Amino acid sequence: MNKQQLKSLILLKKSFLCVGLDPNLDFFPKYVLEQDDPIFFFNKKIIDATKKYCVSYKINLAFFERYGEKGLLSLKKTLNYIPNDVFVIADGKRGDIFHSSKMYAESLYGELNFNASTLNPYMGEDAILPFQREGKWSIILAATSNPSSRDFQLLKTENGNPLYLEVVKKAQKWGSSNNIMFVVGGTNPTIISDIRQHAPGFFFLVPGFGTQGGDLNEIFKVGKNSDIGLLVNCSRKILYANDSKDFDKYSEDFSYKTQQKMEFLLRSSNFI
Amino acid sequence: MNKQQLKSLILLKKSFLCVGLDPNLDFFPKYVLEQDDPIFFFNKKIIDATKKYCVSYKINLAFFERYGEKGLLSLKKTLNYIPNDVFVIADGKRGDIFHSSKMYAESLYGELNFNASTLNPYMGEDAILPFQREGKWSIILAATSNPSSRDFQLLKTENGNPLYLEVVKKAQKWGSSNNIMFVVGGTNPTIISDIRQHAPGFFFLVPGFGTQGGDLNEIFKVGKNSDIGLLVNCSRKILYANDSKDFDKYSEDFSYKTQQKMEFLLRSSNFI
Repeated sequence: MNKQQLKSLILLKKSFLCVGLDPNLDFFPKYVLEQDDPIFFFNKKIIDATKKYCVSYKINLAFFERYGEKGLLSLKKTLNYIPNDVFVIADGKRGDIFHSSKMYAESLYGELNFNASTLNPYMGEDAILPFQREGKWSIILAATSNPSSRDFQLLKTENGNPLYLEVVKKAQKWGSSNNIMFVVGGTNPTIISDIRQHAPGFFFLVPGFGTQGGDLNEIFKVGKNSDIGLLVNCSRKILYANDSKDFDKYSEDFSYKTQQKMEFLLRSSNFI
Repeated sequence: MNKQQLKSLILLKKSFLCVGLDPNLDFFPKYVLEQDDPIFFFNKKIIDATKKYCVSYKINLAFFERYGEKGLLSLKKTLNYIPNDVFVIADGKRGDIFHSSKMYAESLYGELNFNASTLNPYMGEDAILPFQREGKWSIILAATSNPSSRDFQLLKTENGNPLYLEVVKKAQKWGSSNNIMFVVGGTNPTIISDIRQHAPGFFFLVPGFGTQGGDLNEIFKVGKNSDIGLLVNCSRKILYANDSKDFDKYSEDFSYKTQQKMEFLLRSSNFI
Protein backbone atom coordinates (compact mmCIF):
# COMPACT_ATOMS: atom_id res chain seq x y z
CA MET A 1 0.00 0.00 0.00
CA ASN A 2 1.54 3.34 -1.02
CA LYS A 3 0.72 6.84 0.24
CA GLN A 4 -1.99 7.52 -2.31
CA GLN A 5 -3.69 4.21 -1.56
CA LEU A 6 -3.58 4.95 2.15
CA LYS A 7 -5.10 8.37 1.53
CA SER A 8 -7.83 6.82 -0.64
CA LEU A 9 -8.62 4.31 2.08
CA ILE A 10 -8.97 7.12 4.62
CA LEU A 11 -11.30 9.04 2.29
CA LEU A 12 -13.34 5.91 1.58
CA LYS A 13 -13.84 5.02 5.23
CA LYS A 14 -13.95 8.64 6.38
CA SER A 15 -11.64 7.67 9.18
CA PHE A 16 -7.95 7.81 10.04
CA LEU A 17 -8.36 5.60 13.08
CA CYS A 18 -5.81 2.90 13.86
CA VAL A 19 -6.95 0.35 16.41
CA GLY A 20 -4.11 -0.91 18.60
CA LEU A 21 -4.36 -4.57 19.53
CA ASP A 22 -2.67 -4.98 22.93
CA PRO A 23 -4.53 -8.06 24.20
CA ASN A 24 -3.99 -8.28 27.95
CA LEU A 25 -5.55 -11.30 29.71
CA ASP A 26 -5.72 -9.29 32.95
CA PHE A 27 -8.34 -7.01 31.42
CA PHE A 28 -10.43 -9.64 29.60
CA PRO A 29 -14.00 -10.34 30.69
CA LYS A 30 -14.05 -13.66 32.57
CA TYR A 31 -15.91 -15.68 29.96
CA VAL A 32 -13.27 -14.78 27.36
CA LEU A 33 -10.62 -16.47 29.50
CA GLU A 34 -12.61 -19.71 29.27
CA GLN A 35 -12.34 -19.86 25.47
CA ASP A 36 -9.87 -22.14 23.67
CA ASP A 37 -7.74 -19.25 22.48
CA PRO A 38 -8.74 -16.24 24.59
CA ILE A 39 -6.45 -13.81 22.78
CA PHE A 40 -7.76 -14.68 19.33
CA PHE A 41 -11.35 -14.78 20.60
CA PHE A 42 -10.94 -11.30 22.06
CA ASN A 43 -9.20 -9.91 18.97
CA LYS A 44 -11.90 -11.37 16.71
CA LYS A 45 -14.62 -9.62 18.71
CA ILE A 46 -12.68 -6.35 18.59
CA ILE A 47 -11.99 -6.63 14.86
CA ASP A 48 -15.67 -7.36 14.14
CA ALA A 49 -16.65 -4.39 16.27
CA THR A 50 -14.19 -1.91 14.77
CA LYS A 51 -13.39 -2.88 11.19
CA LYS A 52 -15.99 -0.57 9.70
CA TYR A 53 -14.57 2.42 11.54
CA CYS A 54 -10.81 2.10 11.19
CA VAL A 55 -8.25 1.99 8.38
CA SER A 56 -5.48 0.29 10.31
CA TYR A 57 -4.66 -2.21 13.06
CA LYS A 58 -1.48 -1.93 15.09
CA ILE A 59 -0.44 -5.25 16.57
CA ASN A 60 1.64 -4.88 19.73
CA LEU A 61 4.07 -7.79 19.44
CA ALA A 62 4.94 -7.76 23.16
CA PHE A 63 1.46 -8.96 24.09
CA PHE A 64 1.80 -12.01 21.82
CA GLU A 65 5.46 -12.82 22.56
CA ARG A 66 4.52 -12.90 26.22
CA TYR A 67 2.64 -16.17 25.55
CA GLY A 68 5.33 -17.96 23.52
CA GLU A 69 4.17 -20.49 20.89
CA LYS A 70 0.53 -19.98 21.88
CA GLY A 71 0.90 -16.23 21.46
CA LEU A 72 2.44 -16.69 18.03
CA LEU A 73 -0.47 -18.88 17.00
CA SER A 74 -2.97 -16.27 18.25
CA LEU A 75 -1.02 -13.65 16.29
CA LYS A 76 -1.24 -15.64 13.06
CA LYS A 77 -4.95 -16.28 13.49
CA THR A 78 -5.50 -12.59 14.23
CA LEU A 79 -3.57 -11.54 11.12
CA ASN A 80 -5.61 -13.95 8.99
CA TYR A 81 -8.81 -12.54 10.39
CA ILE A 82 -8.03 -8.89 9.69
CA PRO A 83 -9.66 -7.77 6.41
CA ASN A 84 -7.22 -7.45 3.52
CA ASP A 85 -7.97 -3.83 2.74
CA VAL A 86 -6.60 -2.33 5.97
CA PHE A 87 -3.08 -1.27 6.86
CA VAL A 88 -1.52 -3.66 9.39
CA ILE A 89 1.34 -2.47 11.56
CA ALA A 90 3.74 -4.66 13.55
CA ASP A 91 4.44 -2.62 16.65
CA GLY A 92 7.66 -4.07 18.04
CA LYS A 93 10.07 -1.09 18.03
CA ARG A 94 12.73 -3.28 16.44
CA GLY A 95 16.16 -2.12 15.31
CA ASP A 96 19.53 -3.84 15.43
CA ILE A 97 22.76 -4.14 13.45
CA PHE A 98 22.23 -4.84 9.75
CA HIS A 99 22.37 -8.63 9.75
CA SER A 100 20.03 -8.88 12.77
CA SER A 101 17.55 -6.33 11.40
CA LYS A 102 17.44 -8.43 8.24
CA MET A 103 16.19 -11.35 10.31
CA TYR A 104 13.54 -9.22 12.07
CA ALA A 105 12.39 -7.92 8.68
CA GLU A 106 12.17 -11.46 7.33
CA SER A 107 10.13 -12.44 10.39
CA LEU A 108 7.65 -9.56 10.03
CA TYR A 109 7.43 -9.34 6.24
CA GLY A 110 7.77 -13.01 5.34
CA GLU A 111 4.99 -15.32 6.43
CA LEU A 112 3.40 -12.68 8.71
CA ASN A 113 3.24 -10.19 5.82
CA PHE A 114 2.66 -7.00 7.83
CA ASN A 115 2.37 -3.74 5.88
CA ALA A 116 4.62 -1.81 8.22
CA SER A 117 6.65 -1.98 11.38
CA THR A 118 7.61 0.47 14.10
CA LEU A 119 11.38 0.90 14.37
CA ASN A 120 13.76 2.45 16.85
CA PRO A 121 16.25 4.91 15.32
CA TYR A 122 18.94 4.84 18.05
CA MET A 123 21.31 2.63 16.02
CA GLY A 124 20.95 4.73 12.88
CA GLU A 125 20.36 4.03 9.21
CA ASP A 126 21.84 0.55 8.84
CA ALA A 127 19.43 -0.77 11.49
CA ILE A 128 16.51 0.46 9.38
CA LEU A 129 17.51 -0.29 5.78
CA PRO A 130 16.82 -4.05 5.95
CA PHE A 131 13.16 -3.19 6.63
CA GLN A 132 12.89 -1.03 3.48
CA ARG A 133 11.19 -3.56 1.25
CA GLU A 134 8.96 -2.97 -1.76
CA GLY A 135 5.50 -1.97 -0.53
CA LYS A 136 6.47 -1.98 3.16
CA TRP A 137 6.66 0.99 5.51
CA SER A 138 9.20 1.80 8.22
CA ILE A 139 7.56 3.75 11.03
CA ILE A 140 10.40 5.45 12.88
CA LEU A 141 10.05 6.52 16.52
CA ALA A 142 10.52 10.28 16.62
CA ALA A 143 8.68 11.73 19.65
CA THR A 144 6.89 9.06 21.65
CA SER A 145 3.97 9.67 23.99
CA ASN A 146 5.33 8.12 27.20
CA PRO A 147 6.36 10.37 30.10
CA SER A 148 10.07 9.52 29.95
CA SER A 149 10.29 10.22 26.23
CA ARG A 150 11.74 13.51 27.46
CA ASP A 151 14.84 11.75 28.86
CA PHE A 152 16.59 11.83 25.48
CA GLN A 153 14.15 12.78 22.72
CA LEU A 154 13.85 16.36 23.97
CA LEU A 155 17.58 16.85 24.54
CA LYS A 156 18.79 19.79 22.50
CA THR A 157 21.67 19.05 20.17
CA GLU A 158 24.37 21.61 19.57
CA ASN A 159 22.69 22.88 16.42
CA GLY A 160 19.64 23.85 18.44
CA ASN A 161 17.29 20.99 17.50
CA PRO A 162 15.84 18.54 19.95
CA LEU A 163 16.94 14.96 19.24
CA TYR A 164 13.51 13.98 17.85
CA LEU A 165 13.95 16.56 15.10
CA GLU A 166 17.40 15.29 14.21
CA VAL A 167 15.78 11.87 13.84
CA VAL A 168 13.03 13.27 11.61
CA LYS A 169 15.47 15.22 9.42
CA LYS A 170 17.88 12.34 8.94
CA ALA A 171 15.39 9.48 8.66
CA GLN A 172 13.50 11.18 5.80
CA LYS A 173 16.54 10.48 3.64
CA TRP A 174 16.42 6.75 4.36
CA GLY A 175 13.44 6.41 2.06
CA SER A 176 10.59 8.61 0.90
CA SER A 177 7.18 9.65 2.15
CA ASN A 178 5.92 6.52 0.39
CA ASN A 179 7.71 4.18 2.77
CA ILE A 180 8.75 6.15 5.85
CA MET A 181 6.39 7.36 8.60
CA PHE A 182 7.08 8.80 12.02
CA VAL A 183 5.70 7.97 15.43
CA VAL A 184 4.62 11.31 16.89
CA GLY A 185 2.92 11.23 20.28
CA GLY A 186 -0.49 12.87 20.41
CA THR A 187 -0.12 14.48 23.82
CA ASN A 188 2.02 17.47 22.84
CA PRO A 189 0.64 19.63 19.99
CA THR A 190 3.76 21.82 19.89
CA ILE A 191 5.90 18.81 19.06
CA ILE A 192 3.43 17.52 16.45
CA SER A 193 3.43 20.92 14.82
CA ASP A 194 7.23 21.14 14.93
CA ILE A 195 7.63 17.75 13.26
CA ARG A 196 4.94 18.55 10.66
CA GLN A 197 6.87 21.66 9.71
CA HIS A 198 10.02 19.63 9.06
CA ALA A 199 8.35 16.65 7.42
CA PRO A 200 5.47 18.16 5.45
CA GLY A 201 4.85 15.19 3.15
CA PHE A 202 5.12 12.36 5.64
CA PHE A 203 2.48 10.32 7.41
CA PHE A 204 2.51 10.26 11.22
CA LEU A 205 1.37 7.39 13.40
CA VAL A 206 -0.01 9.17 16.45
CA PRO A 207 -0.41 7.25 19.70
CA GLY A 208 -1.60 8.88 22.89
CA PHE A 209 -5.19 9.58 21.89
CA GLY A 210 -7.63 8.07 24.38
CA THR A 211 -6.21 6.78 27.68
CA GLN A 212 -3.12 8.96 27.45
CA GLY A 213 -5.18 12.11 26.96
CA GLY A 214 -4.32 13.40 23.47
CA ASP A 215 -7.00 15.64 21.97
CA LEU A 216 -8.23 14.60 18.51
CA ASN A 217 -9.16 18.09 17.31
CA GLU A 218 -5.79 19.44 18.33
CA ILE A 219 -3.91 16.52 16.75
CA PHE A 220 -5.78 17.05 13.48
CA LYS A 221 -5.35 20.80 13.53
CA VAL A 222 -1.57 20.77 13.88
CA GLY A 223 -0.77 17.36 12.39
CA LYS A 224 -2.66 17.06 9.12
CA ASN A 225 -1.12 17.66 5.70
CA SER A 226 -2.52 17.68 2.16
CA ASP A 227 -2.71 13.86 2.18
CA ILE A 228 -4.33 13.95 5.64
CA GLY A 229 -1.04 12.43 6.81
CA LEU A 230 -2.31 10.98 10.07
CA LEU A 231 -3.08 7.59 11.51
CA VAL A 232 -4.36 8.20 15.01
CA ASN A 233 -4.04 5.16 17.22
CA CYS A 234 -6.29 4.15 20.06
CA SER A 235 -5.73 0.95 22.03
CA ARG A 236 -6.94 0.61 25.60
CA LYS A 237 -9.87 3.02 25.32
CA ILE A 238 -11.32 0.81 22.59
CA LEU A 239 -10.21 -2.63 23.81
CA TYR A 240 -11.20 -2.17 27.42
CA ALA A 241 -14.12 0.21 27.01
CA ASN A 242 -16.09 -2.18 29.22
CA ASP A 243 -15.53 -5.55 30.89
CA SER A 244 -19.02 -7.01 30.61
CA LYS A 245 -19.98 -9.91 28.35
CA ASP A 246 -20.98 -7.34 25.73
CA PHE A 247 -17.64 -5.54 25.87
CA ASP A 248 -17.46 -5.46 22.08
CA LYS A 249 -20.59 -3.31 21.87
CA TYR A 250 -18.79 -0.65 23.90
CA SER A 251 -15.69 -0.99 21.72
CA GLU A 252 -17.89 -0.59 18.65
CA ASP A 253 -19.58 2.43 20.14
CA PHE A 254 -16.30 4.17 20.98
CA SER A 255 -14.86 3.39 17.52
CA TYR A 256 -18.00 4.64 15.81
CA LYS A 257 -17.98 7.87 17.79
CA THR A 258 -14.30 8.36 17.02
CA GLN A 259 -14.92 7.75 13.33
CA GLN A 260 -17.75 10.28 13.42
CA LYS A 261 -15.46 12.88 14.94
CA MET A 262 -12.86 12.11 12.28
CA GLU A 263 -15.45 12.38 9.52
CA PHE A 264 -16.46 15.77 10.88
CA LEU A 265 -12.84 16.91 10.88
CA LEU A 266 -12.26 15.61 7.34
CA ARG A 267 -15.40 17.43 6.14
CA SER A 268 -14.56 20.64 7.89
CA SER A 269 -11.19 20.68 6.12
CA ASN A 270 -12.78 19.81 2.76
CA PHE A 271 -11.07 16.45 2.36
CA ILE A 272 -14.50 14.94 1.75
CA MET B 1 23.94 -13.33 39.38
CA ASN B 2 25.28 -10.09 40.88
CA LYS B 3 28.42 -8.16 40.01
CA GLN B 4 30.66 -9.99 42.48
CA GLN B 5 29.44 -13.36 41.24
CA LEU B 6 30.10 -12.32 37.67
CA LYS B 7 33.59 -11.18 38.61
CA SER B 8 34.23 -14.49 40.42
CA LEU B 9 33.09 -16.41 37.36
CA ILE B 10 35.51 -14.46 35.18
CA LEU B 11 38.38 -15.14 37.60
CA LEU B 12 37.46 -18.83 37.80
CA LYS B 13 37.34 -19.34 34.06
CA LYS B 14 40.11 -16.82 33.36
CA SER B 15 37.97 -15.46 30.59
CA PHE B 16 35.61 -12.58 29.96
CA LEU B 17 34.43 -13.99 26.65
CA CYS B 18 30.77 -13.87 25.69
CA VAL B 19 29.82 -16.10 22.77
CA GLY B 20 27.07 -14.62 20.61
CA LEU B 21 24.63 -17.16 19.22
CA ASP B 22 23.38 -15.78 15.89
CA PRO B 23 22.45 -19.04 14.16
CA ASN B 24 22.14 -18.35 10.44
CA LEU B 25 21.09 -21.28 8.24
CA ASP B 26 22.84 -19.66 5.26
CA PHE B 27 26.21 -20.21 6.91
CA PHE B 28 25.63 -23.73 8.29
CA PRO B 29 27.61 -26.66 6.91
CA LYS B 30 25.33 -28.71 4.64
CA TYR B 31 24.98 -31.76 6.88
CA VAL B 32 23.71 -29.55 9.71
CA LEU B 33 20.78 -28.49 7.53
CA GLU B 34 19.77 -32.14 7.25
CA GLN B 35 19.28 -32.51 11.01
CA ASP B 36 15.83 -32.49 12.64
CA ASP B 37 16.42 -29.14 14.30
CA PRO B 38 19.41 -27.59 12.52
CA ILE B 39 19.51 -24.50 14.75
CA PHE B 40 19.60 -26.47 17.98
CA PHE B 41 22.03 -28.99 16.51
CA PHE B 42 24.37 -26.17 15.51
CA ASN B 43 24.04 -24.36 18.85
CA LYS B 44 24.69 -27.58 20.76
CA LYS B 45 27.92 -28.12 18.85
CA ILE B 46 28.97 -24.52 19.47
CA ILE B 47 28.11 -24.68 23.17
CA ASP B 48 30.05 -27.93 23.60
CA ALA B 49 32.98 -26.37 21.79
CA THR B 50 33.05 -23.10 23.71
CA LYS B 51 31.61 -23.61 27.19
CA LYS B 52 35.00 -24.14 28.82
CA TYR B 53 36.28 -20.85 27.43
CA CYS B 54 33.46 -18.37 27.95
CA VAL B 55 31.48 -16.92 30.86
CA SER B 56 28.45 -15.83 28.90
CA TYR B 57 26.22 -16.57 25.90
CA LYS B 58 24.36 -13.83 24.10
CA ILE B 59 21.29 -15.12 22.29
CA ASN B 60 20.33 -12.97 19.32
CA LEU B 61 16.53 -13.21 19.38
CA ALA B 62 16.15 -12.08 15.76
CA PHE B 63 17.70 -15.31 14.49
CA PHE B 64 15.13 -17.40 16.37
CA GLU B 65 12.07 -15.19 15.74
CA ARG B 66 12.88 -15.49 12.05
CA TYR B 67 11.72 -19.12 12.20
CA GLY B 68 8.48 -18.65 14.13
CA GLU B 69 7.30 -21.51 16.38
CA LYS B 70 10.20 -23.71 15.26
CA GLY B 71 12.67 -20.96 16.16
CA LEU B 72 11.09 -20.57 19.59
CA LEU B 73 11.43 -24.29 20.17
CA SER B 74 15.10 -24.18 19.11
CA LEU B 75 15.57 -21.25 21.49
CA LYS B 76 14.11 -23.14 24.44
CA LYS B 77 16.19 -26.23 23.72
CA THR B 78 19.30 -24.06 23.42
CA LEU B 79 18.59 -22.32 26.74
CA ASN B 80 18.11 -25.70 28.44
CA TYR B 81 21.40 -26.91 27.03
CA ILE B 82 23.49 -23.96 28.23
CA PRO B 83 25.24 -24.80 31.53
CA ASN B 84 23.65 -23.17 34.57
CA ASP B 85 26.74 -21.36 35.74
CA VAL B 86 27.07 -18.96 32.81
CA PHE B 87 25.50 -15.57 32.24
CA VAL B 88 22.82 -15.73 29.53
CA ILE B 89 21.84 -12.58 27.69
CA ALA B 90 18.70 -12.06 25.58
CA ASP B 91 19.88 -9.79 22.78
CA GLY B 92 16.69 -8.25 21.42
CA LYS B 93 17.22 -4.49 21.92
CA ARG B 94 13.73 -4.23 23.38
CA GLY B 95 12.15 -1.08 24.82
CA ASP B 96 8.59 0.23 24.67
CA ILE B 97 6.07 2.13 26.79
CA PHE B 98 5.73 0.80 30.33
CA HIS B 99 2.87 -1.66 29.87
CA SER B 100 4.45 -3.14 26.72
CA SER B 101 7.92 -3.41 28.25
CA LYS B 102 6.31 -5.30 31.13
CA MET B 103 5.16 -7.92 28.63
CA TYR B 104 8.60 -8.19 27.02
CA ALA B 105 10.15 -8.57 30.48
CA GLU B 106 7.67 -11.29 31.35
CA SER B 107 8.49 -13.05 28.10
CA LEU B 108 12.28 -12.96 28.68
CA TYR B 109 12.39 -13.44 32.46
CA GLY B 110 9.43 -15.79 32.89
CA GLU B 111 9.72 -19.23 31.37
CA LEU B 112 12.84 -18.31 29.36
CA ASN B 113 14.61 -17.10 32.52
CA PHE B 114 17.44 -15.14 30.89
CA ASN B 115 19.91 -13.38 33.23
CA ALA B 116 19.90 -10.16 31.25
CA SER B 117 18.56 -8.40 28.21
CA THR B 118 19.82 -5.71 25.88
CA LEU B 119 17.56 -2.65 25.88
CA ASN B 120 17.20 0.45 23.73
CA PRO B 121 17.21 3.73 25.69
CA TYR B 122 15.46 5.98 23.12
CA MET B 123 12.13 5.97 24.99
CA GLY B 124 13.73 6.73 28.36
CA GLU B 125 13.43 5.37 31.87
CA ASP B 126 9.87 4.04 31.89
CA ALA B 127 10.69 1.74 28.96
CA ILE B 128 13.49 0.17 31.04
CA LEU B 129 12.07 -0.05 34.57
CA PRO B 130 9.81 -3.08 33.90
CA PHE B 131 12.97 -5.07 33.12
CA GLN B 132 14.55 -4.21 36.49
CA ARG B 133 13.75 -7.42 38.31
CA GLU B 134 15.55 -9.01 41.23
CA GLY B 135 18.72 -10.70 39.97
CA LYS B 136 18.25 -9.56 36.36
CA TRP B 137 20.39 -7.12 34.38
CA SER B 138 19.40 -4.39 31.95
CA ILE B 139 22.09 -3.91 29.33
CA ILE B 140 21.49 -0.47 27.85
CA LEU B 141 22.69 0.45 24.37
CA ALA B 142 25.11 3.34 24.75
CA ALA B 143 27.57 3.36 21.83
CA THR B 144 26.97 0.50 19.41
CA SER B 145 29.55 -0.92 17.02
CA ASN B 146 27.65 -0.58 13.73
CA PRO B 147 28.74 2.05 11.18
CA SER B 148 25.58 4.15 11.44
CA SER B 149 25.73 4.34 15.23
CA ARG B 150 27.20 7.76 14.48
CA ASP B 151 23.88 9.00 13.04
CA PHE B 152 22.56 9.89 16.50
CA GLN B 153 24.77 8.42 19.23
CA LEU B 154 27.64 10.78 18.41
CA LEU B 155 25.48 13.90 18.11
CA LYS B 156 26.67 16.52 20.56
CA THR B 157 24.05 17.82 22.94
CA GLU B 158 24.04 21.44 23.99
CA ASN B 159 25.93 20.67 27.17
CA GLY B 160 28.82 19.36 25.12
CA ASN B 161 28.31 15.61 25.59
CA PRO B 162 27.65 13.19 22.78
CA LEU B 163 24.26 11.50 23.10
CA TYR B 164 25.80 8.16 24.16
CA LEU B 165 27.25 9.89 27.22
CA GLU B 166 23.90 11.43 28.15
CA VAL B 167 22.51 7.90 28.01
CA VAL B 168 25.30 6.56 30.23
CA LYS B 169 24.93 9.37 32.77
CA LYS B 170 21.17 9.12 33.03
CA ALA B 171 20.76 5.34 32.82
CA GLN B 172 23.14 4.76 35.75
CA LYS B 173 20.46 6.24 37.96
CA TRP B 174 17.84 3.73 36.78
CA GLY B 175 19.50 1.05 38.88
CA SER B 176 23.00 0.31 40.13
CA SER B 177 26.17 -1.31 38.84
CA ASN B 178 24.66 -4.58 40.12
CA ASN B 179 21.85 -4.55 37.56
CA ILE B 180 22.75 -2.08 34.81
CA MET B 181 25.39 -2.64 32.12
CA PHE B 182 26.13 -0.74 28.94
CA VAL B 183 26.66 -1.87 25.38
CA VAL B 184 29.90 -0.22 24.30
CA GLY B 185 31.18 -1.10 20.83
CA GLY B 186 34.71 -2.47 20.70
CA THR B 187 35.82 -0.68 17.57
CA ASN B 188 36.47 2.79 19.02
CA PRO B 189 38.86 2.89 22.03
CA THR B 190 38.32 6.62 22.57
CA ILE B 191 34.61 6.04 23.15
CA ILE B 192 35.22 3.04 25.43
CA SER B 193 37.61 5.14 27.47
CA ASP B 194 35.18 8.07 27.59
CA ILE B 195 32.35 5.87 28.87
CA ARG B 196 34.62 4.12 31.38
CA GLN B 197 35.52 7.51 32.83
CA HIS B 198 31.84 8.34 33.38
CA ALA B 199 30.72 4.90 34.55
CA PRO B 200 33.70 3.58 36.52
CA GLY B 201 31.83 0.86 38.40
CA PHE B 202 29.72 -0.55 35.60
CA PHE B 203 30.15 -3.63 33.44
CA PHE B 204 30.28 -3.16 29.66
CA LEU B 205 29.09 -5.66 27.08
CA VAL B 206 31.50 -5.09 24.20
CA PRO B 207 30.54 -6.28 20.72
CA GLY B 208 32.70 -5.63 17.69
CA PHE B 209 35.61 -7.90 18.57
CA GLY B 210 36.30 -10.39 15.79
CA THR B 211 34.59 -9.81 12.45
CA GLN B 212 34.04 -6.10 13.11
CA GLY B 213 37.73 -5.53 13.87
CA GLY B 214 37.88 -4.50 17.54
CA ASP B 215 41.28 -5.11 19.15
CA LEU B 216 41.18 -7.14 22.38
CA ASN B 217 44.31 -5.61 23.94
CA GLU B 218 43.03 -2.13 23.30
CA ILE B 219 39.54 -2.92 24.60
CA PHE B 220 41.01 -4.34 27.80
CA LYS B 221 43.45 -1.48 28.25
CA VAL B 222 40.87 1.29 28.10
CA GLY B 223 37.74 -0.61 29.21
CA LYS B 224 38.66 -2.61 32.31
CA ASN B 225 37.86 -1.51 35.85
CA SER B 226 38.65 -2.95 39.27
CA ASP B 227 35.99 -5.67 38.77
CA ILE B 228 37.35 -6.35 35.28
CA GLY B 229 34.06 -4.83 34.11
CA LEU B 230 34.05 -6.33 30.63
CA LEU B 231 32.18 -9.01 28.73
CA VAL B 232 33.69 -9.09 25.27
CA ASN B 233 31.38 -10.65 22.73
CA CYS B 234 32.34 -12.60 19.66
CA SER B 235 29.72 -14.10 17.35
CA ARG B 236 30.48 -14.77 13.70
CA LYS B 237 34.24 -15.30 14.11
CA ILE B 238 33.48 -18.20 16.47
CA LEU B 239 30.28 -19.57 14.91
CA TYR B 240 31.47 -19.52 11.32
CA ALA B 241 35.17 -20.10 11.86
CA ASN B 242 34.89 -22.85 9.27
CA ASP B 243 32.14 -24.52 7.23
CA SER B 244 33.46 -28.08 7.13
CA LYS B 245 31.89 -31.01 8.95
CA ASP B 246 34.31 -30.31 11.81
CA PHE B 247 33.32 -26.67 12.09
CA ASP B 248 33.07 -26.94 15.86
CA LYS B 249 36.75 -27.81 16.16
CA TYR B 250 37.57 -24.46 14.57
CA SER B 251 35.11 -22.70 16.86
CA GLU B 252 36.72 -24.40 19.83
CA ASP B 253 40.16 -23.41 18.65
CA PHE B 254 39.23 -19.75 18.21
CA SER B 255 37.50 -19.65 21.61
CA TYR B 256 40.46 -21.31 23.28
CA LYS B 257 42.91 -18.87 21.71
CA THR B 258 40.73 -15.95 22.76
CA GLN B 259 40.49 -17.28 26.31
CA GLN B 260 44.28 -17.63 26.38
CA LYS B 261 44.69 -14.01 25.30
CA MET B 262 42.20 -12.97 27.99
CA GLU B 263 44.03 -15.00 30.62
CA PHE B 264 47.26 -13.29 29.64
CA LEU B 265 45.62 -9.87 29.98
CA LEU B 266 44.09 -10.77 33.36
CA ARG B 267 47.48 -11.97 34.60
CA SER B 268 49.35 -8.98 33.32
CA SER B 269 46.98 -6.72 35.27
CA ASN B 270 47.25 -8.89 38.39
CA PHE B 271 43.60 -9.96 38.47
CA ILE B 272 44.80 -13.57 38.70
